[in-house]
Order: sequence, then structure tokens, then C-alpha cells
Amino acid sequence: MRPLFLITNDDGYQSKGIQTLVNIANELGDVIVMAPERNSSGLAHSFTGSRPLRVYTVIEENSRKIYACDGTPVDCIKVCTEHFCPRKPDLVLSGINHGSNSSINVLYSGTMGAVIEASVSGMQAIGFSLLDFRPDADFGPSVPYVKKIIETVLKKGLPQQVALNVNIPVPDDGIIRGIKVCRQSHARWLDSYEKRTDPHGRPYYWLSGRFECNDDGEGTDQRALLDGYVSIVPTTTDYTHFMQMQAVKDIFPEGDNNRHII
Amino acid sequence: MRPLFLITNDDGYQSKGIQTLVNIANELGDVIVMAPERNSSGLAHSFTGSRPLRVYTVIEENSRKIYACDGTPVDCIKVCTEHFCPRKPDLVLSGINHGSNSSINVLYSGTMGAVIEASVSGMQAIGFSLLDFRPDADFGPSVPYVKKIIETVLKKGLPQQVALNVNIPVPDDGIIRGIKVCRQSHARWLDSYEKRTDPHGRPYYWLSGRFECNDDGEGTDQRALLDGYVSIVPTTTDYTHFMQMQAVKDIFPEGDNNRHII
Repeated sequence: MRPLFLITNDDGYQSKGIQTLVNIANELGDVIVMAPERNSSGLAHSFTGSRPLRVYTVIEENSRKIYACDGTPVDCIKVCTEHFCPRKPDLVLSGINHGSNSSINVLYSGTMGAVIEASVSGMQAIGFSLLDFRPDADFGPSVPYVKKIIETVLKKGLPQQVALNVNIPVPDDGIIRGIKVCRQSHARWLDSYEKRTDPHGRPYYWLSGRFECNDDGEGTDQRALLDGYVSIVPTTTDYTHFMQMQAVKDIFPEGDNNRHII
Repeated sequence: MRPLFLITNDDGYQSKGIQTLVNIANELGDVIVMAPERNSSGLAHSFTGSRPLRVYTVIEENSRKIYACDGTPVDCIKVCTEHFCPRKPDLVLSGINHGSNSSINVLYSGTMGAVIEASVSGMQAIGFSLLDFRPDADFGPSVPYVKKIIETVLKKGLPQQVALNVNIPVPDDGIIRGIKVCRQSHARWLDSYEKRTDPHGRPYYWLSGRFECNDDGEGTDQRALLDGYVSIVPTTTDYTHFMQMQAVKDIFPEGDNNRHII
């Protein structure tokens, strides 16, 4: 039986990146796409509970079905798995995102929100992002790497509750060097909201920002990407800060916080 | 100088939970609230970039300022820090949420999205949630614990990039037993979308779900809450799955993925 892929993204079902991914996956198996009907960047792990979802059929062929949904990328994973997949997908793919989801961007990313949701639900999942946010970005050089990574995961599998955050560089010379498994670089967005005044004299605030990363040493995703490698970060669904667990236990020693003290 | 608290939530600025938190914090210091103008549950770490934000003044007193924003909880942290705080807040608080954010709920939670955002931005931050989602939930028994936790963090500080996810039980006998520092339980939502038909004959899908947790042994937040303890999970901003890093490196050995192979 051909593998079944469930594919989503956060740029919308018509974007060039998801079309690239669908074409790659369709060479390897059957494809069901459910993706947002419009751009949904920055929606992270949000889901829709307060209103119902609508789903629109775009294409229904034997080995390729495409649906658009008016929800978030996480919604797409949830509703598609239950109502549109004939069986549990062998692999969930998200992207290829127009723009980086490396480093701290994973927190804000709808592309990776969908991947983490699939992982929580016990499915194997990979998010792909290209470091070019333009609508007409050239996905050509990334194709053999995306295909290789999908084939490898189909063959070898992933550990339970481990999703992959794959970012693909756009080197100046056009040559991608290979693949590196990395940790997430520590970084932040230095936000700046421009305060403007509307035609009625009322203020509004519009976000812009600058990415600041001082953590690009060996072993980080930023280093791999700067060096022209595809970065793969194994991504968890457990946000416990295990390395600081004891430090926080020391801050709240159990005896100090019994109810007779409070 | 009195400590400065920045407070937000995802239930909206008028909710009972945030009013409780503001009253506790205002006993200890000055308070600036910026919270969503309406319920924003399930928005996770999403932010608004494609449209501008509006901010409405609710109260502007010396030691208590309350603003409503038409963005997400993460937006509230970002825009408030830049445009409405006279200095960097000493502590960011979020909640008290109406409903649990323990276990896997941290992924979906706007309350915790705001807390994690503050932590990424180098601020100390705590999210509080009560295991009662009703609008008129009784926050009374949680007050001494919330106050104690805030006072402890003000006094001892938190490690860098560690936020706290605090959940407060509602024991049958009304007596909270104390405080425990825990890890996040592994769990999932078994989603179910009811497929219905609208008055025009078109289908729509409405989410319901059931929480499934089989990981409630000693040391987990679910265990602590079931036993009547306040759970504190130290929460990270780094989603790298360090424990499975080597396993994933074994799946993608570097020599196998040089560009001459691809």
C-alpha cells in the first residue's frame, strides 16, 4: 500500500511552498491536503473552539485530495484526521513555509503548530521551511533534500513524540551543503510597534521587528543554516524545563509551602 | 520602589480571574494590565502582524492602569512593554485562567503563550490557572497560594528563560494541600468534530473533545492536582527534544547526507 500523507501549512493552500511539497509527496504516496483558505502565519498552536469550521473541496482525485479550511493549521490537522482521512496518515507534512521557522520562530509558527499537534496525536510529523519569505521563492534547490528527509523518515521512523523542524537555507552560491541535526538557537525578536494615527485621530500600533540571535555556535540551527546546511531540530511536545527543575524545587521547598504555613 | 507588575490573560480584561490577580498584585506593587478585549482562549503563542492593534483605556490610576487590546495575549505583552510600561516590569503575571492549563493544555493556552513570550523577552513570568472554567468560579481558596508564589519569586527570582505554569486545584473538601514543583504530564485531547448541516444544507464541523491522560504518577502535575496540591511546572522556551537528539542524529548520520549523495 502506498503511504498516506496528510499535508498542511500556514501560508494557505494556494501557496507555492505547499504545491512543491505536494508534488514531492505525491511521487512517494497518496496525498490529502487540508490547509488554511488564506495566509495564517503567526497562528502558532492556536485552535478554534468558539465557532464551527468550514471545509471547501478544491480537488478530489484518487491519489490527491485538496481541501481548504477556514481554521488554523492546528484545526486542519484535527478535523482532517477525523473526517477526511480514510486511515491514520503514515506521515504528516507541513510547509514548505515561505520564511524561516528556525530558532525561536518555532514558538510563533503555524507551520510548526500543526506539526507539534500531529506529534501529540501520535503521528509522525515534519515541518519544512525555506529561508525566503517571498511568494515566488525558488523551492527548486530544496526539493532533493525534502524528498530525502521524507524517504528517510518513512524508512526508519521517528521516536515517539519527536517532531522534526526542518529549515532550508538559501546560500549565496545556490549550493546547499548537506543536512545537520541541531538544537534550537536561543534568540528573540526585538519588537517595535509603530504608533500611527488613523484618519479619525485615533492611535493604532503596527508590529515590525528585528531578529536578534547571539547563539550561533556549533550544534545550533542558526550555525548550520549560516554554513549552508539544512537544519533538523528534533522538537518536543513537553515544555518542562528539566534542566532547571531542581533550581525551581529549591525556590519552592516542599516544607515551606504546606498549607499550615500559607 | 514598589515592584511593577504587567498582567494579562486570555479570558478578557473583565473576567473574574484577572480581577482576582490584579487585586493580589496591587497589594504588593503597581499594576499595569493589558488584556484582550474579549475571550481569547486557545490562541496559544499566536501574534498579530498583518493588521494593526487598537488599545482602549479602561482605568488610569496611579498604581493601577487597565488597558484592553484587540490582539492576542502575546500581542498584549509585546505592545504593552514597549508603549505602556514606564520601565521593564519586575514580574509578568497571566491569569488567573478560568480552566486548567496543566499537562498538554500548555500548548494551546493563550495564558501561557503570554507567559512564554515574556520569558523569551527576558522577563520573569508566571501563569496562574484554576481548575474551574466557569465565569463565576470561586477564586477565594487560591488567593493565599497565588500571593505566596508571587512573593517568593519577587524575593528569590527565577532562573533565566524559565517561566512558571501554576495550576490550582479545586478539591472536593475545599482544602488545598500545598505546593509541588512538577513535570508536565503527557496527555492528549481526543478530539471529536460534530458534523452538522446549516440552514442552507451546507456542512460545518464543531469541535468538542475529551482529555485523556495516562501519565499521572508521582512527580507529574496531574498527580499533584489530583492530590489537592498546587502544581508548578518550570516551563522552557527551548523546544529541542534533547533526550532524543542522538536518536535523530542516528537517523540522519552526517556522512549519509552530504550534497554529493543527494
